[in-house]
Amino acid sequence: MTSNVTPAKIAIVMGSKSDWATMQFAADVLTTLNIPFHVEIVSAHRTPDKLFSFAEQASEKGLDVIIAGAGGAAHLPGMIAAKTLVPVLGVPVQSAALSGVDSLYSIVQMPRGIPVGTLAIGKAGAANAALLAAQILALHDTRIAEALAAWRKEQTDEVLNNPDPREEA
Amino acid sequence: MTSNVTPAKIAIVMGSKSDWATMQFAADVLTTLNIPFHVEIVSAHRTPDKLFSFAEQASEKGLDVIIAGAGGAAHLPGMIAAKTLVPVLGVPVQSAALSGVDSLYSIVQMPRGIPVGTLAIGKAGAANAALLAAQILALHDTRIAEALAAWRKEQTDEVLNNPDPREEA
Amino acid sequence: MTSNVTPAKIAIVMGSKSDWATMQFAADVLTTLNIPFHVEIVSAHRTPDKLFSFAEQASEKGLDVIIAGAGGAAHLPGMIAAKTLVPVLGVPVQSAALSGVDSLYSIVQMPRGIPVGTLAIGKAGAANAALLAAQILALHDTRIAEALAAWRKEQTDEVLNNPDPREEA
Amino acid sequence: MTSNVTPAKIAIVMGSKSDWATMQFAADVLTTLNIPFHVEIVSAHRTPDKLFSFAEQASEKGLDVIIAGAGGAAHLPGMIAAKTLVPVLGVPVQSAALSGVDSLYSIVQMPRGIPVGTLAIGKAGAANAALLAAQILALHDTRIAEALAAWRKEQTDEVLNNPDPREEA
Amino acid sequence: MTSNVTPAKIAIVMGSKSDWATMQFAADVLTTLNIPFHVEIVSAHRTPDKLFSFAEQASEKGLDVIIAGAGGAAHLPGMIAAKTLVPVLGVPVQSAALSGVDSLYSIVQMPRGIPVGTLAIGKAGAANAALLAAQILALHDTRIAEALAAWRKEQTDEVLNNPDPREEA
Amino acid sequence: MTSNVTPAKIAIVMGSKSDWATMQFAADVLTTLNIPFHVEIVSAHRTPDKLFSFAEQASEKGLDVIIAGAGGAAHLPGMIAAKTLVPVLGVPVQSAALSGVDSLYSIVQMPRGIPVGTLAIGKAGAANAALLAAQILALHDTRIAEALAAWRKEQTDEVLNNPDPREEA
Amino acid sequence: MTSNVTPAKIAIVMGSKSDWATMQFAADVLTTLNIPFHVEIVSAHRTPDKLFSFAEQASEKGLDVIIAGAGGAAHLPGMIAAKTLVPVLGVPVQSAALSGVDSLYSIVQMPRGIPVGTLAIGKAGAANAALLAAQILALHDTRIAEALAAWRKEQTDEVLNNPDPREEA
Amino acid sequence: MTSNVTPAKIAIVMGSKSDWATMQFAADVLTTLNIPFHVEIVSAHRTPDKLFSFAEQASEKGLDVIIAGAGGAAHLPGMIAAKTLVPVLGVPVQSAALSGVDSLYSIVQMPRGIPVGTLAIGKAGAANAALLAAQILALHDTRIAEALAAWRKEQTDEVLNNPDPREEA
Repeated sequence: MTSNVTPAKIAIVMGSKSDWATMQFAADVLTTLNIPFHVEIVSAHRTPDKLFSFAEQASEKGLDVIIAGAGGAAHLPGMIAAKTLVPVLGVPVQSAALSGVDSLYSIVQMPRGIPVGTLAIGKAGAANAALLAAQILALHDTRIAEALAAWRKEQTDEVLNNPDPREEA
Repeated sequence: MTSNVTPAKIAIVMGSKSDWATMQFAADVLTTLNIPFHVEIVSAHRTPDKLFSFAEQASEKGLDVIIAGAGGAAHLPGMIAAKTLVPVLGVPVQSAALSGVDSLYSIVQMPRGIPVGTLAIGKAGAANAALLAAQILALHDTRIAEALAAWRKEQTDEVLNNPDPREEA
Repeated sequence: MTSNVTPAKIAIVMGSKSDWATMQFAADVLTTLNIPFHVEIVSAHRTPDKLFSFAEQASEKGLDVIIAGAGGAAHLPGMIAAKTLVPVLGVPVQSAALSGVDSLYSIVQMPRGIPVGTLAIGKAGAANAALLAAQILALHDTRIAEALAAWRKEQTDEVLNNPDPREEA
Repeated sequence: MTSNVTPAKIAIVMGSKSDWATMQFAADVLTTLNIPFHVEIVSAHRTPDKLFSFAEQASEKGLDVIIAGAGGAAHLPGMIAAKTLVPVLGVPVQSAALSGVDSLYSIVQMPRGIPVGTLAIGKAGAANAALLAAQILALHDTRIAEALAAWRKEQTDEVLNNPDPREEA
Repeated sequence: MTSNVTPAKIAIVMGSKSDWATMQFAADVLTTLNIPFHVEIVSAHRTPDKLFSFAEQASEKGLDVIIAGAGGAAHLPGMIAAKTLVPVLGVPVQSAALSGVDSLYSIVQMPRGIPVGTLAIGKAGAANAALLAAQILALHDTRIAEALAAWRKEQTDEVLNNPDPREEA
Repeated sequence: MTSNVTPAKIAIVMGSKSDWATMQFAADVLTTLNIPFHVEIVSAHRTPDKLFSFAEQASEKGLDVIIAGAGGAAHLPGMIAAKTLVPVLGVPVQSAALSGVDSLYSIVQMPRGIPVGTLAIGKAGAANAALLAAQILALHDTRIAEALAAWRKEQTDEVLNNPDPREEA
Repeated sequence: MTSNVTPAKIAIVMGSKSDWATMQFAADVLTTLNIPFHVEIVSAHRTPDKLFSFAEQASEKGLDVIIAGAGGAAHLPGMIAAKTLVPVLGVPVQSAALSGVDSLYSIVQMPRGIPVGTLAIGKAGAANAALLAAQILALHDTRIAEALAAWRKEQTDEVLNNPDPREEA
Repeated sequence: MTSNVTPAKIAIVMGSKSDWATMQFAADVLTTLNIPFHVEIVSAHRTPDKLFSFAEQASEKGLDVIIAGAGGAAHLPGMIAAKTLVPVLGVPVQSAALSGVDSLYSIVQMPRGIPVGTLAIGKAGAANAALLAAQILALHDTRIAEALAAWRKEQTDEVLNNPDPREEA
């Protein structure tokens, strides 16, 4: 499941296969930044024991950041966070009836003691979880810092070079 | 912690001591119905291992219903439900900022596969969780069925006998 | 209307024919678990007398759990619950304008005295109502307990055996 | 319980004694307009049979409008409306956790077939239910029409005569 | 614009042509009940003077009920109500961004003094406004009372005669 | 009612006397900036005719901006805007049950054609309505432009000079 | 980028190219009114420095009104407003998950000191921002005042001339 | 302003002095963990230039994490994040009218490209922002890792040692 020979410092986990449509935007960002990552389905409700063993081994496996996406009563990010000191970033997946408000509240409203850094609902949140994970790694990894700076500059230049919304891209 | 010599078939668990102000209304109902129960603080986020062992032993300890109250990103009911086949009833505790809407969504919006029977936010929900637990026990316990019927009749009579809201109680 | 020769211990009722698109997920789960059930349209607003007679006869007809689905100002579960001591599980059907938030509030926010165990909005809630009903029956029915345990194990194994969300199912 | 020798054409019913703090604003308006009314506690959940008999007799007892107030999963107005053709006006009582949004949705989101004319949450809604009831009676009662016109003129004049919000009343 | 030779006692007004997709469900009900009605576009914001003259003449033109539908910042029902003592029923039209919650709040949350009897968001609300208007007329019109009773019986029978949601209609 | 000999270019109107607790924050800002203003209660629902005459005369009376505050089904800003081309700024007053969300939606969700520039709910919104009105006047009034620039500088300096939140003010 | 030889007094800025689908309704209104305007993409998050220089130069470039549209955590209008005394009108662009409620709150709930006049979510809001901007310019520009009056009259006549919603346009 | 001789790697900034009542819970956690931090008021709207210079210098000043708290249209965390690659954690301060839902949406719903790791509304969120910041530092600081582990153990033990909510603490 490892995407790369280099041991991954970032894991992207999600509650179900259907969450991949959202979480792949996290993977895409990490791929663009050339940062290895691990991807796996871990369901808080259907595989609670796997959730616990995953979280318990996170530190020794060398993970520096865990990105966890889930929808509805989204317990995955918070329960992983309860079982490890590795920073957990949560991505609320857009849900059918409540558009992800349930996912957002379930992830962000953690009680004092166990934090989950929560990103926006849906694809933007998934991409941003990857960027924030990269920013954390960049504190001690010059190559990633430079990749991020270049990524940001490109994003800024794209806006600066196309200032008129009426023109074709 | 057991409230009674008879082994309890109902457990009332909650995420923190402050939830007792809400959950005692469940205890009160069970006491009134003369149904033994067990009360304990089990925090999904602060004591995840205890949560797991509690849920794993629920069935063998003879529990027939687990009433779980929690607020905010309320993971307790859903995570217990993920680890046992004993029916779990969830009580959303009213939270500071979001008045329990976060608690409600975190408890009720469980994904297909792991159910939590959710009651109203706050004290009414706690009392009703106890009543629903009693109704489940009553399916195979005539004494409880009779106690419930009497309780209901009393509640109905109280309204019937005091039909004018303008009179002093 | 009985789906099976064995007298059904579970009834699935709903406010209108259109609710079947949601409630059939409850029926599917019970069919999978080989649990007989009764299905019927009972409208709180269009057939209030039928609602009352249905609820009044629920116990003598041998029902152990009533699953009631309704949308909008969803009064069906609560009114059945007011007329019987048989446990009632409520399924908020997703509504057109408010996405089922109205259904959810109308079902879950019952006052102290009359409980409705509420599940998630929509299909997941319907399926989970059936699972919770089965869990209640399983307290005194070993076959159902085993069927549920097997169902859960299958669900867990499905996740464990397909850990990579990027692979085709 | 009748407030007046003249048989009342308006009934004010409510789910519990605590609703009187809200519903008395309906009574006050009717008293001011010198319109007799009947007041009674009718609980959908605690006294469903009384609800049915009340609604079934509404027409023969000469009621022209029923004002029903309730909070939370507020089923009272809708269930009365399901059992009579007398116009029902619903008043959502402000609830503890959800500030009456639950009451409002439970009352106003009635399905096609059974209408409840819904007023604002809380005291203003109670007063306005009485005014709307009076407007309905006024269609065939000149005295009430004149009383309403005078009431409105007074209300308008009060604003017109005190145009500066900075002055003491 | 009058739909019938008999002077109409019910008017259906709406803020824009696009509201007709919703409000025609009110017209359909009245047509079914053989009750004449008047239909007209009256925009609170684009034709405020017409709104005022319409409301001022409502009583003398013989209107007994005004059904007003509007979406978004839906001021039409409330402003008509401020200018006449004819009962006003409001229908919140489902809006693009906020699904009609804005329409609902703008219509139902009227301050003390000027009532609008509010129905559900969208088509069900439009149909129910017509039914409630008919119920008001039926207080003094035996033919309409009988038509309503028949309509209700038909609606009830339709449910009673088709109790199984799994069968084709 | 005029606060100053100079004919006022800004009017502050509100639906009821109780709104003054909010709207005085607009008056305070204008007073600080030494901008004359007119204050008056104009109720959309209780004094609709006054609302119309006020709005119709706004331009000829020399008003350049109308600040209108209202709560609940807040129709005042939108109805004034429908009757004049003078820019209208709306202030949603915090309401009892819905905390001003109803006020906000009723004011901001105006349909295409009649704009209301809406500010924040409550006191901050009232103060900001005055600031925005002043900014509009400042486009053609150097004194006000300078007063605003000074006001902003003072506000900025207050933060810059007190950077530590732990110190006493 | 200037749409017209006459130096533009109105700028329409937006956070991303995709916002043009909404903001073009502002441009359309200004074009109809024959008011020159400037259009440009300015992203608060991707081009913060451009945002600052744009805002700092707004006054000296002769802008009288800035219309800023943004979605989600919509910081563009508020941050421009923090850097200039030119009036800023904000348009909440409808967002994917939260339908623009996030955009609305991020724009309208500005703290005391920095106002943003906020319009409705989406296309209606964009058109109305242009109308409000025109109304501000019209205070000192008779031609625009006349164009606006004509525009309004046309809009009113369109309703008056087509009063029956059932007829084809 | 530096709380400690050791150059701080964590800054706690907030939009106004009143936010300190919330943000001090972040400071308390860092103090308990013996982690130096910097505290400062930086207002996005009142001191935008200071915000920019603060963010531009964050990296060179050695900051590893910035904790930013703000309420209402809370632009501070997102705008800092737009100007630096240092990870930003956002704390939604509970607001007067909307209880912090506006703060939450304004902080968490950042568009793709600029992430803010968002914590819960209010005090719990502030404390958790500090814990998450500490977890990030702990990735490369054994002392902090040990302090965090001890802190967590103490928090767990407190629950384990006081399992009965009915006992006095």
